[in-house]
Amino acid sequence: MKSKFHEFLKEDIGSGDITSELVVPESMRAKGTIICKEPCILAGVEEACMVFLELGVKVTSHKKDGVRVKKGDKVLVVSGRARSILAGERLALNIIMRMSGIATLTRSLADKCKKVNPNVRVAATRKTTPGFRDFEKKAVLIGGGDPHRMGLYDAILIKNNHIRLAGGVKEAMRRAKRGSFTKKIEIEVESADQALAALESGADIIMLDNFKPEDAKKLAKILKMARPDILIEASGGIRPDNIEKYAASADIVSLGSLTHSFRSIDFSMKVEQT
Amino acid sequence: MKSKFHEFLKEDIGSGDITSELVVPESMRAKGTIICKEPCILAGVEEACMVFLELGVKVTSHKKDGVRVKKGDKVLVVSGRARSILAGERLALNIIMRMSGIATLTRSLADKCKKVNPNVRVAATRKTTPGFRDFEKKAVLIGGGDPHRMGLYDAILIKNNHIRLAGGVKEAMRRAKRGSFTKKIEIEVESADQALAALESGADIIMLDNFKPEDAKKLAKILKMARPDILIEASGGIRPDNIEKYAASADIVSLGSLTHSFRSIDFSMKVEQT
Amino acid sequence: MKSKFHEFLKEDIGSGDITSELVVPESMRAKGTIICKEPCILAGVEEACMVFLELGVKVTSHKKDGVRVKKGDKVLVVSGRARSILAGERLALNIIMRMSGIATLTRSLADKCKKVNPNVRVAATRKTTPGFRDFEKKAVLIGGGDPHRMGLYDAILIKNNHIRLAGGVKEAMRRAKRGSFTKKIEIEVESADQALAALESGADIIMLDNFKPEDAKKLAKILKMARPDILIEASGGIRPDNIEKYAASADIVSLGSLTHSFRSIDFSMKVEQT
Amino acid sequence: MKSKFHEFLKEDIGSGDITSELVVPESMRAKGTIICKEPCILAGVEEACMVFLELGVKVTSHKKDGVRVKKGDKVLVVSGRARSILAGERLALNIIMRMSGIATLTRSLADKCKKVNPNVRVAATRKTTPGFRDFEKKAVLIGGGDPHRMGLYDAILIKNNHIRLAGGVKEAMRRAKRGSFTKKIEIEVESADQALAALESGADIIMLDNFKPEDAKKLAKILKMARPDILIEASGGIRPDNIEKYAASADIVSLGSLTHSFRSIDFSMKVEQT
Amino acid sequence: MKSKFHEFLKEDIGSGDITSELVVPESMRAKGTIICKEPCILAGVEEACMVFLELGVKVTSHKKDGVRVKKGDKVLVVSGRARSILAGERLALNIIMRMSGIATLTRSLADKCKKVNPNVRVAATRKTTPGFRDFEKKAVLIGGGDPHRMGLYDAILIKNNHIRLAGGVKEAMRRAKRGSFTKKIEIEVESADQALAALESGADIIMLDNFKPEDAKKLAKILKMARPDILIEASGGIRPDNIEKYAASADIVSLGSLTHSFRSIDFSMKVEQT
Amino acid sequence: MKSKFHEFLKEDIGSGDITSELVVPESMRAKGTIICKEPCILAGVEEACMVFLELGVKVTSHKKDGVRVKKGDKVLVVSGRARSILAGERLALNIIMRMSGIATLTRSLADKCKKVNPNVRVAATRKTTPGFRDFEKKAVLIGGGDPHRMGLYDAILIKNNHIRLAGGVKEAMRRAKRGSFTKKIEIEVESADQALAALESGADIIMLDNFKPEDAKKLAKILKMARPDILIEASGGIRPDNIEKYAASADIVSLGSLTHSFRSIDFSMKVEQT
Repeated sequence: MKSKFHEFLKEDIGSGDITSELVVPESMRAKGTIICKEPCILAGVEEACMVFLELGVKVTSHKKDGVRVKKGDKVLVVSGRARSILAGERLALNIIMRMSGIATLTRSLADKCKKVNPNVRVAATRKTTPGFRDFEKKAVLIGGGDPHRMGLYDAILIKNNHIRLAGGVKEAMRRAKRGSFTKKIEIEVESADQALAALESGADIIMLDNFKPEDAKKLAKILKMARPDILIEASGGIRPDNIEKYAASADIVSLGSLTHSFRSIDFSMKVEQT
Repeated sequence: MKSKFHEFLKEDIGSGDITSELVVPESMRAKGTIICKEPCILAGVEEACMVFLELGVKVTSHKKDGVRVKKGDKVLVVSGRARSILAGERLALNIIMRMSGIATLTRSLADKCKKVNPNVRVAATRKTTPGFRDFEKKAVLIGGGDPHRMGLYDAILIKNNHIRLAGGVKEAMRRAKRGSFTKKIEIEVESADQALAALESGADIIMLDNFKPEDAKKLAKILKMARPDILIEASGGIRPDNIEKYAASADIVSLGSLTHSFRSIDFSMKVEQT
Repeated sequence: MKSKFHEFLKEDIGSGDITSELVVPESMRAKGTIICKEPCILAGVEEACMVFLELGVKVTSHKKDGVRVKKGDKVLVVSGRARSILAGERLALNIIMRMSGIATLTRSLADKCKKVNPNVRVAATRKTTPGFRDFEKKAVLIGGGDPHRMGLYDAILIKNNHIRLAGGVKEAMRRAKRGSFTKKIEIEVESADQALAALESGADIIMLDNFKPEDAKKLAKILKMARPDILIEASGGIRPDNIEKYAASADIVSLGSLTHSFRSIDFSMKVEQT
Repeated sequence: MKSKFHEFLKEDIGSGDITSELVVPESMRAKGTIICKEPCILAGVEEACMVFLELGVKVTSHKKDGVRVKKGDKVLVVSGRARSILAGERLALNIIMRMSGIATLTRSLADKCKKVNPNVRVAATRKTTPGFRDFEKKAVLIGGGDPHRMGLYDAILIKNNHIRLAGGVKEAMRRAKRGSFTKKIEIEVESADQALAALESGADIIMLDNFKPEDAKKLAKILKMARPDILIEASGGIRPDNIEKYAASADIVSLGSLTHSFRSIDFSMKVEQT
Repeated sequence: MKSKFHEFLKEDIGSGDITSELVVPESMRAKGTIICKEPCILAGVEEACMVFLELGVKVTSHKKDGVRVKKGDKVLVVSGRARSILAGERLALNIIMRMSGIATLTRSLADKCKKVNPNVRVAATRKTTPGFRDFEKKAVLIGGGDPHRMGLYDAILIKNNHIRLAGGVKEAMRRAKRGSFTKKIEIEVESADQALAALESGADIIMLDNFKPEDAKKLAKILKMARPDILIEASGGIRPDNIEKYAASADIVSLGSLTHSFRSIDFSMKVEQT
Repeated sequence: MKSKFHEFLKEDIGSGDITSELVVPESMRAKGTIICKEPCILAGVEEACMVFLELGVKVTSHKKDGVRVKKGDKVLVVSGRARSILAGERLALNIIMRMSGIATLTRSLADKCKKVNPNVRVAATRKTTPGFRDFEKKAVLIGGGDPHRMGLYDAILIKNNHIRLAGGVKEAMRRAKRGSFTKKIEIEVESADQALAALESGADIIMLDNFKPEDAKKLAKILKMARPDILIEASGGIRPDNIEKYAASADIVSLGSLTHSFRSIDFSMKVEQT
């Protein structure tokens, strides 16, 4: 991911940080402290460190990814050239505030779900910000969620568009089974009939898309009875206020809002001459 | 931005879309339709088009960036190789749902503010997603906002860390004025004293950071009387529920949440064989 | 993979094809014909086409990837600027000769194995040429083999080094099962004891590494009896002359030589003015 | 070549080494030892070192490129984060096994040829793996061979396609001589007549393509008598079993199989906790 | 800019420095000294240092950017692997000789101009060498000039082509004022009428293009009287022999020849074994 | 070189051409005409075309690289989106003005030299602008000069630093001769003794560095008598006013000022709505 940080810095710095080059002497050295401004599950500390290392600035992290922090907590202290610290400030904060936002939301939903089903996993989707997926998926993991597949390349997931183009669940499954033995096959279904066809066809994971909680529950029960090792994922229309209903009967509940509609957590950085 | 789309596609596709390569025949051709699932200000259509063009898929846009669309509206129709359409589907949707989310939020705040001050600008900040800034700033513009500076390179903005390192507002301003004549100088102040020092030092724009609405109002009045062409930007602690109070007396109100805590708009794509 | 072809061309052309720039007039147009010089399973035609398309040269393929071709068969005809054809000649041939070499070897081994076990898969490994893996894995697929995982990112494969570092099969399996539900877990074992531990721990695939054929056979039988849906992969020390012995009792036989010690197939290109 | 290693690692690691991230603790430190599994001329040690340096792992090489090693010899010892060692293992081995394969083959052919002609050079061609040429050419050098030109940019080599397009040897040579004085001119000929035309036209090197050994011998004698400083390269149809016949009368014998059909040498790496 | 140095080195070194690899032993260590061969304003020392740091060579600079040096002055001493020093030699010298050429020319013109108008700025243009702009603009700054805008992205400059396409100065200005409040608006005018229209429209900077010195003087006076804080830039047809005439009445004089037609300064490097 | 143009455009356009995006409507179409402002040898037309093609703008060239053009001549006409034309204008002009400057200078020196020695070649050096070498070397070629080696990779040139580190001309030559048979060996000498040692050692080209014209003449005569096919290059201290003296007795005269201290030629572009 090293080159990512380089690219992100270039996005912000471009042809030069004209303010710091004018206002801050080249040789001045400074200390910067990142402070949390509201309670959250912290995430992004490793990445913030890498931002500053890329700039030749030393870092000491005071809190680890995944811990619960409160307002006023010191998260990271950096020291080095003042200009370099200022050049990395915004990027480091932009990463921490987003990753902590996602981790905090994931943790709260995971906690909720585990009360009704200790083995359920709260999973993300591919509805991530283009170019920033690795960071968002890692934040889900830190928050106690499952990142789900990373992209189109690392798991087979037959969606309704695929089923339509293949001419049905069974034909889609038949084709998918020609794939490498190293991959699981997951299929998204929209009805009980499709679910049963998927079961018969040997799917490893069945995703119940946009089912009502009670329908999902009934269907999951039938599928599990027929094949106990099958995995059931509930997805579509899942929100913080109804997630528990799905969590009770599914192995996995997945929701895009973990990465597309979270609220960032406020952090700030104070820079002082040393 | 062409290479951005290539990079975003690579993030999702990686070593290959293993599902479509198995399930959808190479030669199959299809039509894809992007539909809006909730009312919003549409943004990201141009970018979605570029995603598909990058994949050799033809596009016809039915709605333009910046218009108000409602649930069920057809936004974009694409046609070409089924596998290529499926390869671009998620990326195109990820862009549209985010940009429309930002544009919709910006428009609603801009409308609110313009009721109390028709000339005020609602501006974004640099609190954008790393690697995705161009898209988020453009969405602000489409929503009727001002993108503010694009990075550290295109405007001088002296922040509180700079003032501290320079040893005060006046010294910071003195140094900044040695910069190129092509750039404006903006300075962030935290007190009336700092604001007056900035005024005397010849700042082009004064950002009042974290002032209470009534304090901001009084101070803006004084600064404008002293120099009518000075621009006043209110920033810090501005939220949808208090933005109008700031908008009344400032030339610009800026808030990070436009790009760091918006809610994405739901869109979907249906793919059919042709 | 488009940028790959650009990079490969740069490797060969560098600061310019000095011979063609001197000897062949800029405006001369030509036709080039790629001919097979020995019988083989053809692979790399699509890639050769992309090499020439990248150079603005038109292509017509006369044979498809995967077919059996014989000495003298016309594979591809290209037409365009003579200099551009010459600039792509060597790269196109280098790709076709390697991919066809791999596909031919894979097919011959797959045919051999299927005689003793029609359901067995001949699989490649990660012992590919750095930077050229996508091409080599695709050639395996064209030859009728299974590409196995593409890299470290798309399947969990616990190898003996992992087992040693984790302190045993069971602990390694326990940790691996915390991973995403979207991934299968494969484990490499070197003894019957390890294999049984892997079975109990819930491995999806067990790789029998460097077992004698008869030992592999006995063990596979036991494992399959205990869990019929478990997959058995034989690997290590498998050569063209002993592969059938492993193929009889395994679901998969994998061997690195498919990609690290194949013989390239001879192809040539004739270029004539048009 | 630094960026090459980065790119090669990305090919293998992609979005993450999911096995090691699960099974091996982040802070665990380890030692890895690369061992040779069969006698060979060693090559690729420098490159393997660079792979691990790129990953922040310390390296100590026990054997140098170019030496003869035997089964069981310790080649390289690395130490650092266990995860980083595992991330570099396959790439380092993939490089060493290929480069040693090429160096070993080159050395054996060079030894054979030097018995009949101590001044002859065994040279490679441009029939290298796309993207991996620098490594393969270096392996030839380590094996005691001549890398020949690196690409289309660093020497003029008029091939039969060029001669055909230019309308003959003399016209092709006339045009080539307008090139920079810094470059030698080599020309590939298929008959004695062409060879004599090339000689008269002032070629620096004449490549006798696909001549029978006795014909090559007679022609080389004539050419050398006419111009003692001319270089004769024999190429085309040269195999390990007939190479000596060509070596006797040529300055250079070149063969593509050095880089397109070698057998990789077996190496393995053992990783232990420290 | 780090990646720039990498790219520049690749341009020169390509597939390898074949001379040094043959003639200089791999382990030899050396010292290199860069010496100035003619009096000049020194620039490019920081960049030369970065070239050698990129190559793992230690550097000690004896003179700083911006100082006046004379023939024979030692500028930089480097020490490390002899081959690495030789690999960076030409690039380091190519940068220093160009940047010092630009800085020297800029300083001489700035000195000239400041005699007639101590507050005037001598500014560069966008007429820079493609890919080398950052270096040339920095050299202007070191010489005491103003870099002007860095590209099309960091300041609004309405040129005559824009005015023609917009249908006049006033319409062009009206449109430009819809841009972000963070940017100044400069406009290029070719007549007094256009200048007055620009003034009325609220331009921040007016560029008088190709005016005779006396006309520029008169117009500048009028514009300044109307709006004292407006900035006047003289441009077009300005040469070292007439620059003072423009400098007297303008805030800025800009000329492309600073970066497109300067004379490089001679420097050389001596490398000795250590 | 395609990616070069992309990179150059990014340097100028960065996050966007803010002026044109404001002032010129997105859908406006225009015609642009590049006109020569002073007599010169034209160069860079092909490259200017590629700039506009990269931007999707159509081009018609009215003059070819290498012809003599006069003030007012129309060189290139482009048509397409007005914004795209404006985005490429400066880059296209920056390339043409530089390449034409170099071609014009080269031609004038070549003409001068050929009067005293019709077979002499005027050659460039590696003293080119970092990142822009391909363009500058091509301009030398268009002007009738010899580009000399392109970098450190395509010819062996033993310079005085190499001789010093190797311990003398003979040892340096001995080592160089172990290099690939495909490369010529050139050596730079500073005295007659060194020149004779180089001759004896079998150098292909001897560069007489910083010799007085009469000394160069005498030495060249001796060297040529001893070996008629040896090439003599005069270099160092060669200027337009003394170049003829060197040209009389050398095969090649080379001078860095061709690429490091030329004067750019003035061109402009007029853009009109269509």
